[in-house]
Amino acid sequence: MNRRDFLHQSAALAALPLAARAPRHTSRHTSRHVNGARLTAWLTAFDSIGRTRDGINRVAYSEADLAGRAFTLDLMRQAGLTPRIDAGGNIFARIAGTKGSLPTILIGSHVDSVTNGGNFDGPVGSFGAIEVGRTLLETRIRLRHPLDVVIWQNEEGGTIGSKLAIGALTDADLDQTARSGSTIREGIGLTGGSVAQLATAVKQRGEIACYIELHIEQGGILEKAGMQIGVVEGIVGLRWIEVTISGAANHAGATPMDQRQDALLAAAKFTVAIHDAIRAVPGRQVATVGRMVASPNTANIIAAEVVMTIDLRDLDEATLVKFNASFETLGREIGSATSTTFVFRSLVNSEPAIADPRVMQYITTSTIGLGLSHMRMPSGAGHDAQEISRIAPMGMIFIPSVGGISHSPREFSRPGDIVRGADVLLNAVLAADAG
Amino acid sequence: MNRRDFLHQSAALAALPLAARAPRHTSRHTSRHVNGARLTAWLTAFDSIGRTRDGINRVAYSEADLAGRAFTLDLMRQAGLTPRIDAGGNIFARIAGTKGSLPTILIGSHVDSVTNGGNFDGPVGSFGAIEVGRTLLETRIRLRHPLDVVIWQNEEGGTIGSKLAIGALTDADLDQTARSGSTIREGIGLTGGSVAQLATAVKQRGEIACYIELHIEQGGILEKAGMQIGVVEGIVGLRWIEVTISGAANHAGATPMDQRQDALLAAAKFTVAIHDAIRAVPGRQVATVGRMVASPNTANIIAAEVVMTIDLRDLDEATLVKFNASFETLGREIGSATSTTFVFRSLVNSEPAIADPRVMQYITTSTIGLGLSHMRMPSGAGHDAQEISRIAPMGMIFIPSVGGISHSPREFSRPGDIVRGADVLLNAVLAADAG
Repeated sequence: MNRRDFLHQSAALAALPLAARAPRHTSRHTSRHVNGARLTAWLTAFDSIGRTRDGINRVAYSEADLAGRAFTLDLMRQAGLTPRIDAGGNIFARIAGTKGSLPTILIGSHVDSVTNGGNFDGPVGSFGAIEVGRTLLETRIRLRHPLDVVIWQNEEGGTIGSKLAIGALTDADLDQTARSGSTIREGIGLTGGSVAQLATAVKQRGEIACYIELHIEQGGILEKAGMQIGVVEGIVGLRWIEVTISGAANHAGATPMDQRQDALLAAAKFTVAIHDAIRAVPGRQVATVGRMVASPNTANIIAAEVVMTIDLRDLDEATLVKFNASFETLGREIGSATSTTFVFRSLVNSEPAIADPRVMQYITTSTIGLGLSHMRMPSGAGHDAQEISRIAPMGMIFIPSVGGISHSPREFSRPGDIVRGADVLLNAVLAADAG
Repeated sequence: MNRRDFLHQSAALAALPLAARAPRHTSRHTSRHVNGARLTAWLTAFDSIGRTRDGINRVAYSEADLAGRAFTLDLMRQAGLTPRIDAGGNIFARIAGTKGSLPTILIGSHVDSVTNGGNFDGPVGSFGAIEVGRTLLETRIRLRHPLDVVIWQNEEGGTIGSKLAIGALTDADLDQTARSGSTIREGIGLTGGSVAQLATAVKQRGEIACYIELHIEQGGILEKAGMQIGVVEGIVGLRWIEVTISGAANHAGATPMDQRQDALLAAAKFTVAIHDAIRAVPGRQVATVGRMVASPNTANIIAAEVVMTIDLRDLDEATLVKFNASFETLGREIGSATSTTFVFRSLVNSEPAIADPRVMQYITTSTIGLGLSHMRMPSGAGHDAQEISRIAPMGMIFIPSVGGISHSPREFSRPGDIVRGADVLLNAVLAADAG
């Protein structure tokens, strides 16, 4: 399905009488529905912001990102919400609860994109949350808890907004340059935050009853299994390991095969060995060599050096530790066999973020109530939810990505799946509020 | 040994009484010697031209290359030779023979360098040939054949000067851009040639009695074997094959291991398979994957595409054909196993250039007469001699490269080895002249 098909299906959805899609009930124990046509129309309109020949480009702090945030603020106002921007540049909009003393139910996602990405990673959950808020207001359902809709800033640059919300960024982190060319410090200013007031943006443990994020899967598990909804068990922990392999540059013609110190051959053997190791054991662990840079990278010179990265992920921290160690052993062995040296450097080291069983239950109950098929699954991608899990119970709702593709102009999710995801979010919020 | 050691050994060589190194004989059947101290002093002086922090940079047609050519013209004049520049930009200097009707004995090499190269690849054979001419003039030895000393232009850019001398370049070839940024057409003008007169630079079969080139080995075979002189059996044939492997970009975290089309994993498996295939059979064939470019080349995205090159060389054309075919089979098999596609493209396809047995005998006789150890060996690197072999009997003399290193700032050959190489050239010329 392409973008034209999306518009077509969205229009068909809009033409259906509301009652056909969303039987109205007043009891909290019966499933409720969002206005799906409105939600998909918002996504369609949003597609024009930051759209380039190479895909969606709304990288954080760029003009397109700021335009996307303005669009989102406008959606909130149309929904009857009153957005505010915290000192971290995150957008919040609150609906007061009937019991003011209760902690907040938090829902939302992000609207920034990767370079040459798609229109679904982030906006689906962001607009889905706004639509949930609007549906609650329109149907005059009052929650006991306050409900906050949040749009985290700069998710794709390393879950920056949600890290600010848990106080996890240092002063030095703020000086890192984001994809747009601005530093995070500058980005906070551009998004309407205030570096001087950052402490006020930090949420305390106990403030948030739970955080629920709707998102596209970004993989092909749901599609392959023929399931409509993924109930996320947790966000995998991540190791990014940079490996520098040093050999010796030499003439490709004049150097006999047994006198070489070929860094690229060593890198190739290592890449195959990593793959074999990760697949030799049952489990859902994944390891990827996605980046490899050889020097001098010339057809007729034996490579002197290769710098490569390993991306290792699993829901179980012990599994990460085990594979990390086994990769270092494999590197030493291959280095010894190829007369090259391996140096390992840890670039990123994040622990798994486990979803809260009660929040998973709210989502599962919601899904069953709506009559949707579902499965439990890990999130292989990182999300703001992993940061919030450090201070509050967290859960995530996944909808299928067509072809399992994301971070690509070919990223796509079907309108029907998006609306089902928002319906699940709505009813999960109701379940959480009922406790 | 470093450059300081080179200067030190050169100075020691100059301090020796000439007679100690070069016993003078009048008979052609006794070995003769060049003035080794003079030769190594020239090389030392030449080291300052195009020397940068990253090595010697005298890429063809650059200011440093033109300065190197001016230095070389000056050496020729100091030697009593009268240089002329042909229409192709090659420098020639002739010593008339006593029998004017005989074809020319041609000796020489090149003075241009690669990017960030050394001072020995080219200059050793170029200055060695000039020194041989000077020695002949000084010692009043008259050859029966005319002797031409040649400095080929732009060897490192694809043996351009010698290709022009055999009429092997097309008009379109002249518009190719060289490393300096100038086209070959422009380069011919810069070196004092004339594109309009190129036909006059083409040598005819029968014009050249033989071509003998002295060169550094550029590999570690002589050093490892403890031999002083390599008698080259031929210059290996070369295949450069570009392989494009197409998979599918996808999220490194969210895509299970069994749902991937990982182009970088396929490239790694292929690189290992090429290496295993080439080593599975006895022989001196070599294959190198020296260049690999992945896209998007990002730590957390499964690679969609890899473009890599294979450099395959052997003295036997049938071996090249056999391995080329087996690589294509391996690619198909790995493509099928990894759900990727392999596309092969031939970039360079040069046949082996076999040294003439008689010229090899002149060199061997010369080596034995000088009491030097020697071995027969292929040249794994390309040389102007491979072009000239198409129209005339060819032979090459190799001297050791310390550590087998070339095309590198660490390229080095010992003064003693350089002088021995020039001595071998001198006596090989005398043997060729005697026929």
